[in-house]
Amino acid sequence: MSAFSATLTGPVLVIGAGLLGASAGLGLRNLGYTVYISDISPTVEAVAEDIGAGTSLRAVAEEWGAEAGFVLEPQLVVVAAPPDVTAELVVKALGEYPQAFVIDLASVKSAILADVLTSGADATRYLGTHPMAGREKSGPVAARGELFAARPWVLCEHPLARRELVKLAQQVAVELGSTVTFLDASEHDRTVALISHVPQVMSSLLASRLQDTPLYALGLAGQGLRDTTRIAASDPNLWVQILAANAQPVVQTLYGVREDLERLISTLEAPTDSGSRLDIAQLMSEGNHGVARIPGKHGGAPRAFAQLTVLVDDTPGTLSRLLHEIGELGVNLEDLRLEHSPGAPVGMAEISVNPSEHEKLVDDLTSRGWKVVT
Amino acid sequence: MSAFSATLTGPVLVIGAGLLGASAGLGLRNLGYTVYISDISPTVEAVAEDIGAGTSLRAVAEEWGAEAGFVLEPQLVVVAAPPDVTAELVVKALGEYPQAFVIDLASVKSAILADVLTSGADATRYLGTHPMAGREKSGPVAARGELFAARPWVLCEHPLARRELVKLAQQVAVELGSTVTFLDASEHDRTVALISHVPQVMSSLLASRLQDTPLYALGLAGQGLRDTTRIAASDPNLWVQILAANAQPVVQTLYGVREDLERLISTLEAPTDSGSRLDIAQLMSEGNHGVARIPGKHGGAPRAFAQLTVLVDDTPGTLSRLLHEIGELGVNLEDLRLEHSPGAPVGMAEISVNPSEHEKLVDDLTSRGWKVVT
Repeated sequence: MSAFSATLTGPVLVIGAGLLGASAGLGLRNLGYTVYISDISPTVEAVAEDIGAGTSLRAVAEEWGAEAGFVLEPQLVVVAAPPDVTAELVVKALGEYPQAFVIDLASVKSAILADVLTSGADATRYLGTHPMAGREKSGPVAARGELFAARPWVLCEHPLARRELVKLAQQVAVELGSTVTFLDASEHDRTVALISHVPQVMSSLLASRLQDTPLYALGLAGQGLRDTTRIAASDPNLWVQILAANAQPVVQTLYGVREDLERLISTLEAPTDSGSRLDIAQLMSEGNHGVARIPGKHGGAPRAFAQLTVLVDDTPGTLSRLLHEIGELGVNLEDLRLEHSPGAPVGMAEISVNPSEHEKLVDDLTSRGWKVVT
Repeated sequence: MSAFSATLTGPVLVIGAGLLGASAGLGLRNLGYTVYISDISPTVEAVAEDIGAGTSLRAVAEEWGAEAGFVLEPQLVVVAAPPDVTAELVVKALGEYPQAFVIDLASVKSAILADVLTSGADATRYLGTHPMAGREKSGPVAARGELFAARPWVLCEHPLARRELVKLAQQVAVELGSTVTFLDASEHDRTVALISHVPQVMSSLLASRLQDTPLYALGLAGQGLRDTTRIAASDPNLWVQILAANAQPVVQTLYGVREDLERLISTLEAPTDSGSRLDIAQLMSEGNHGVARIPGKHGGAPRAFAQLTVLVDDTPGTLSRLLHEIGELGVNLEDLRLEHSPGAPVGMAEISVNPSEHEKLVDDLTSRGWKVVT
């Protein structure tokens, strides 16, 4: 009986050649590992091979086939499929490749782990993981080997998982550029419910109100509406699977939202009642406290930068010139947000800098002819 | 009886020397008009004068006083006070300055108009307006004359308002750099309920869930959570007044949100029931439709730009260099969003360009050594 290595040497079989799978394949190939890639759709699989994400399993099977005595023995199987079908693909891979470790990349973990554990498959060779990368794009054409760079990758240890598997999975994540976090499956699901799934729901709830909003009204919309509805442009099909698979933690949080919403509605139905103002102020204030807990840049304590907003013509090179001049003035750009004027061909560049540099920068930029709007 | 001019000549009296009032004062002074500024707080008024927003009314009254026969006769009074006290200040100004036009800048309009109309004051000389500018900062120190540049400014005509007043108010807005929109007070309030007040509520409802979220969970938060909670950092005191004053339109929209939320909660309590998936998909899809109606850059039809995300070290000059190189490659930067890696000192610059330029730009930047992440 062969021992399991804790070190990735390959080959790797990626099952599912969408954005995540194809990017993982690309990234691992770029690192020098042998990668095979497979997808339920022959076209997707062929495209993934074309972009360099790995050797198409269909093509290899065609060429070599069982008659030639070919048996693929991957060291690691990466299941990169939608949440709905992930567990079954994991179980199938555990059966088909008895020497392989199997990880998955789905964004919900408890449901899949539960299915694997009750399947009778060898769960010691399975680890649930979640690389928190990639967004609105989908499909292999958008795949990049660097997709995972500087992103978090969560590994969900469970009591049966072999030590070697956990180390190997960690190596994969680190070599692909991620920062690794360990959470058990339930912690993970509660976490993503709060930081990803409920925000998605709130954004969609808000955006659906806009369906009947007159266009002239939407024409006055500023950054507040855009920010709060940006992620409402997400793929319904994917999110149906995610929300259904993570229903419990999500609905627990939504109970709290419903309670607050009910209280606010009652208050606004009688806004002049005594205590109404306090109610509203309390909700706003709790929101202040919540948002202030979100870490600042790079996970540090939220830092108070000073902002200035500079008007930039919407012509090529203007923003670049502004940033260049800020650099020339020796000031470090801590953050940048670009807004567009609803009615004029200009943008507003909201620059964040160290508070100690704020006043002089405003003066310097103004004397160089820039319009500092606020 | 003097005729009312439709042309602004001054003097202008600004009542309320916070961000909006002081910025209006600054802007009008920069344009060459004589401006007096007044605030309930002597300190705020003095600071506003110091930054150049106008001559302090207290100082003038001290020096000249009633005994010296001094009577201020402004052509235009601009009430720039919190929503709660605006109507009473408008009514007072209409009485004190019988030759003056009076406008206000508050972000809710119907309640104020109703109070003015029922007060017995001369409403023909009053116009409600709303410059949609300025944000988290407050107070005169942050004031800029260019605050209104390229922002929308809504003028709320009502049947009694004199023609000359409307033209004069339009001139003020245009000279301060705004694009003018006409809406009646009710249309205005319904509009801002949808595009500003309800987004604020949703953001606060979401952010208040984070109060008990473990910090390790918040450490994994990406741009989705940050975007949807950014405006939750708003000033509770101001928003209490806004929401109370615009309660009806806001609560009408919240009824719809509550209905959708209830349906979603029921669905998530039984996610495997037949029809559940369809329910969730429908909410997501309605969100898609809503957000797709928000105009693109500068109010045009939403355009489909192509995005690429480039990794930028968090060192001075890197982002500037990237933009410069994009410019050198002859590609126009249509939009830019900067995200920060939760765990590493790098940022992700999400660049939007014309789809036809996307592929070549990705190749060119990659060959110049940039890491294109997606």
